[in-house]
Amino acid sequence: MADPLTNLIRTYHELNAAVVDELDEQPSALEFMRHVAANRPFVVPRAIRDWPAFQKWDANYLRHLMGREEVKVAITSLGNADAVVESKEDDSLVFVEPYEVFEPFGEFLDSIQRSSSSTTEVGHVKYAQTQNDNLRHEYASLLPDVPTDIPFARIALGQNADAINLWIGDDRSTTALHKDNYENIYCQIRGEKDFVLLSPVEMPCVNEQLLARGRYAPVPPAADAATTFYDGGKYDDSGVEALEVQLDSDAERVPVATWDPDEPEKRTTAWSSLAKPLRVTLREGDMLYLPCFWYHKVSQRVGDEGFVCAVNYWYDCSFEGSSFASHSFVRDVYLAEQRRPEYPELKVGGETEGG
Amino acid sequence: MADPLTNLIRTYHELNAAVVDELDEQPSALEFMRHVAANRPFVVPRAIRDWPAFQKWDANYLRHLMGREEVKVAITSLGNADAVVESKEDDSLVFVEPYEVFEPFGEFLDSIQRSSSSTTEVGHVKYAQTQNDNLRHEYASLLPDVPTDIPFARIALGQNADAINLWIGDDRSTTALHKDNYENIYCQIRGEKDFVLLSPVEMPCVNEQLLARGRYAPVPPAADAATTFYDGGKYDDSGVEALEVQLDSDAERVPVATWDPDEPEKRTTAWSSLAKPLRVTLREGDMLYLPCFWYHKVSQRVGDEGFVCAVNYWYDCSFEGSSFASHSFVRDVYLAEQRRPEYPELKVGGETEGG
Repeated sequence: MADPLTNLIRTYHELNAAVVDELDEQPSALEFMRHVAANRPFVVPRAIRDWPAFQKWDANYLRHLMGREEVKVAITSLGNADAVVESKEDDSLVFVEPYEVFEPFGEFLDSIQRSSSSTTEVGHVKYAQTQNDNLRHEYASLLPDVPTDIPFARIALGQNADAINLWIGDDRSTTALHKDNYENIYCQIRGEKDFVLLSPVEMPCVNEQLLARGRYAPVPPAADAATTFYDGGKYDDSGVEALEVQLDSDAERVPVATWDPDEPEKRTTAWSSLAKPLRVTLREGDMLYLPCFWYHKVSQRVGDEGFVCAVNYWYDCSFEGSSFASHSFVRDVYLAEQRRPEYPELKVGGETEGG
Repeated sequence: MADPLTNLIRTYHELNAAVVDELDEQPSALEFMRHVAANRPFVVPRAIRDWPAFQKWDANYLRHLMGREEVKVAITSLGNADAVVESKEDDSLVFVEPYEVFEPFGEFLDSIQRSSSSTTEVGHVKYAQTQNDNLRHEYASLLPDVPTDIPFARIALGQNADAINLWIGDDRSTTALHKDNYENIYCQIRGEKDFVLLSPVEMPCVNEQLLARGRYAPVPPAADAATTFYDGGKYDDSGVEALEVQLDSDAERVPVATWDPDEPEKRTTAWSSLAKPLRVTLREGDMLYLPCFWYHKVSQRVGDEGFVCAVNYWYDCSFEGSSFASHSFVRDVYLAEQRRPEYPELKVGGETEGG
C-alpha cells in the first residue's frame, strides 16, 4: 500500500483535471464562490479589455502620469527577487531578497525598455513589485484606470480587496515558486505571464526547506555585513555597482519551496514526481483566479511597449472550515516523515485494509 | 510536539466555533455556498412554518392520505437500526441492520402513537426510515405538501435534490453516529430531534472499526442462518415475534464509527478526548444544514400528535478540490498510526521545527 502522502496526491489528481478551467466571461459571485469552495483556479481570456488601463497604459501615458514620482524598485543580478540562491562555496541554499532603491518612475521605465530592446542582457534586473497595495499608494495616479474592486469577488467574499498591486518589469524577472494567504485575481495589462501552479496538497513535492536569509547589496558591502559568498553582479546603468548576496546571520530561517517545476529532476523529494503542475499563459487583457494557498511560479515576456505590466487584487482567505487545518496537517505529516527512520512496516492482525 | 492528528483536530477547533451557526432566515444561494465552502452546518429556526406539511400533517391527515398504502418499516429491539451491537458471548461488535416489513401505513402509525402514549416500553421499535427518496415514491401522496426542492440549495449547487426522504418514528429510535456523502437539508415537521455533530477532521476520534454485519430477524431463525448470538427481542403488537441478530458471515466487513459522543469514555481512541461535538435541537418548523461528510447521531422526541416526522433533501457532494482527498488522507494517516509500532521518535540534524 502506498504511503498516505502518495495516496493524497494521487487521489487529488484523480478527482481534479490537470488543466486550468477557462471561462467565457467573468463569473457571477455565486459561480466564483463555487471555485473558491473547490479551491480551483480559472482563467477568463479577454476579461479586462474594457478597463481604461488596458486601453491607455502605454509608455508615454505612464511617463506622463508617473514620470517624476519616486518609486521603489527591486534590483537583482538575475531577475531572482525573493528566490533561492545556491552558495558557490558550500552548495547551501539561501533565500535572497532584492536590493531595493527609490528612483523616479521615468528613469525606471527607461531602464526596463532599454533592457527589452537590447539583444544582450544589460545590467542588473529591475522589477517594480512591491506587494504592499502600491496601486493605492505609490501609483495612486494610475488607480482611476482600474476598477476599485473586482465585483464578483467583492460580493462573493463579502469584503473589499485587501491590496491592489501593480507589477512592472522586463523579460528577465521571474517569481520563484511560493504561496500566499490570499485569494488572488490577477489581471494582465501588457506583455504576457506564464504561471506554473501547484495545489496545496502538493506541498510534499516542493521540498520546503528552512533557509538562511540574505539580500542583494552593492559592492563594497557595509562594514557590518556577514559572510559574502556569491557575486553575480555586473555594472549596470542605475548607478548601482556590482551586487552580491549578503547573508543575514541574525535572521530566523524561513521555510522556502526549493523544488522548481521547470527543473523537476533537481532538489526533489520522494513525492516530487507525483506533482502535476498546471500551466497557463496570461495574455494582454486576460484574468486569472489564483486560489488561496496555491503554489505559483511566474515568468514573463514584454509586449510591444517594451515592458510587462499586471495588476492583481488580493482578498483575505477564509480560515474557517477545514481547508487551512488540512493543509497544515499535510505539512505536519510531511515533516514527521522526514524525521522518521525507515523501519519496516509491521502488519498486525488480519484486519488492516489492503494488507 | 504533538502528533499530526492531534495538531489537526486542535487547529480545526481553534479556527472554528464549537457551536452551530443560527441564521435568522433561509440564506441566499450565495450565503449558502459560503457555508458549503466552509463545510460548516447552520440551523434556521422556524424556516419551514409556511410549508403545507408543517400546517397540515397531523395523524388524521396522514391517515386520510396514506392509511391503506403499504409502507416499508424498520423494526428493531431497541430503536437501533443501522447500529453497533455488542455480542453477549465474546464482546465483539456487529453492525446490525433492522428487520424490515411492509405494512399498511395506518397500522404503522397506530403502533407509533400507541408506543408514545404508553408509560412503559411496548414491543419492538418501528421506524419508517427508508432513505431511498421515499417521499417521491412510497409517500408520493404527501409530496405536494413540501417544496420540490430547497431553492437556495438547488441554485447554489446547480442541481436538483438527489433524494427527498420522509422519516416517521417514536421516541425510542436513534440513528447511530455515521456520515453520508450528501449535502443534507433537514426539516423538522413534528416532534423534535437532537443532533450531535462531528466534523470530518474528527475521524480519528470516532474509532472506526471494520465490523461484521448482521440483521435483526424474527425467531425462530431461518434454517440457513449463521450463528445467533444476541437476543434482545420481546413480543410486540406487530405480529413479529422475538427478534434476534443474525450474523451474515458471508458479508464483507464494513467500516463503522464505534465511539458514541454520548458515552465518551467507552470505546475511545487516543484522539476521542479531542472531539468537540456540536449539539443542536431541531424543533417543529426548524431547518438544519448538515454538510457533506459530517458525522451525526440523532435522537428524537414525539410532539403533541404522538409521532416524530421530518423530511430531508439530499444533494450530491462535490468531489472537486481537496476536501474529499484530505478527508481520505486523515483516514489513511489514522490507519497507518494504528499499524505503526511505537518506536521512539528520532531527531535528525538541527533543523526540524520545535525539536
